[in-house]
Amino acid sequence: MQNRSYRIVEVREQVLADNGKAAEKNRECLKQNGSFLVNLMGSPGAGKTSTILKIIEKLREKYRIGVMEADADGDTDAAAIGKTGTRVIQLHTGGLCHMDADMTGRGLLAFDIKDLDLVILENVGNLVCPAEFEVGADLRIMILSVPEGDDKPLKYPLMFSISDALLISKTDTEGIFDFSRDLAVQRALALNPDLSVFFVSAKTGEGYDEFCRFLDQKISAKRYLSAGKEEYE
Amino acid sequence: MQNRSYRIVEVREQVLADNGKAAEKNRECLKQNGSFLVNLMGSPGAGKTSTILKIIEKLREKYRIGVMEADADGDTDAAAIGKTGTRVIQLHTGGLCHMDADMTGRGLLAFDIKDLDLVILENVGNLVCPAEFEVGADLRIMILSVPEGDDKPLKYPLMFSISDALLISKTDTEGIFDFSRDLAVQRALALNPDLSVFFVSAKTGEGYDEFCRFLDQKISAKRYLSAGKEEYE
Repeated sequence: MQNRSYRIVEVREQVLADNGKAAEKNRECLKQNGSFLVNLMGSPGAGKTSTILKIIEKLREKYRIGVMEADADGDTDAAAIGKTGTRVIQLHTGGLCHMDADMTGRGLLAFDIKDLDLVILENVGNLVCPAEFEVGADLRIMILSVPEGDDKPLKYPLMFSISDALLISKTDTEGIFDFSRDLAVQRALALNPDLSVFFVSAKTGEGYDEFCRFLDQKISAKRYLSAGKEEYE
Repeated sequence: MQNRSYRIVEVREQVLADNGKAAEKNRECLKQNGSFLVNLMGSPGAGKTSTILKIIEKLREKYRIGVMEADADGDTDAAAIGKTGTRVIQLHTGGLCHMDADMTGRGLLAFDIKDLDLVILENVGNLVCPAEFEVGADLRIMILSVPEGDDKPLKYPLMFSISDALLISKTDTEGIFDFSRDLAVQRALALNPDLSVFFVSAKTGEGYDEFCRFLDQKISAKRYLSAGKEEYE
């Protein structure tokens, strides 16, 4: 039994090392095209697609947006995004529980990102595996919905640790579920003091203005830094 | 790149073949001890622990129950189960996104199951990976909560395909979320016509009597069959 678990660990390390190289390639590709990549993660039904629809609504005038929908199967989310007129591709992971950097790179290629400012990857609905595979994103955003409970940072610490921003979603249902904002935020910040936290509701619209300002600033900051660097090269 | 994805597939096949053997060992161990194993799966926050508390409440007089709580980290669920006086162990997967048969076997050993009639494994909160790894359970039960949405069978088909029973939970919130019972059930049964479907709410208590009668019947049926077989051996 010992023997077997060692073997699995070796394989995982090799896979993760390869993944790191592919992520670096994606970062280079994004930089050359002047594109900004968001990796959006969270449990099934946390509100990832609703959040993307809000981002499109609020930032479509300023940025050319593309969306990559990753799912084990199906195309319901891609159809929902497509209705807004936004460019969208559906990626099927063939049952795999996460997107890795290589798959993301193939998505970027298929997309022809040179005329896209902002690319949003909606990762597979999963609070565990996507946290282990960097895809070369400029910003990692995770969503925790109120119905999931305020104890999730205790059970799924890696996702909270590697994310740049946390959206606590479906806040309109706080009266129904036993969910403490304070506890959720304390537990998340204990894992990752740098996490930017936003409370949002796609139903009432709460919080999305503030969150989209934050996203806008991050995109602007990358452009500013890239431009400055080129100037001095 | 082609090369790399082939390699991963080979590894997965080997891992799954090893897992099948370990699952068979677990089935043999359960049979010898006259124990019944439930593998309980679902997204983070779907209501797995609440369901176990309901099963304990309704079946503790009839069966000696033990609970194995599997989490990437933490022990909040084990603490909640422990308060009822039920035997419980916490299994840490070390960040892994699912329980496999070998880990489950180690849990059964640690538990000393000979004086347990019913062992419930609460798998890692994840709608993807646990579906791929059989653990040797007598019954696979999945939970889909109303807040997750009725489109989940389209996106996570494998979990619905391999489960014996589906609990649609948090039905008390149906007025708040855009969830169609009919659509959810149609989509689930299209994948798996043999699925037994129950609607439950831990808050109102709806459906747990019916579900626990179903579980009771399954446990009784295994005992009846085992006894009959021994008689003719």
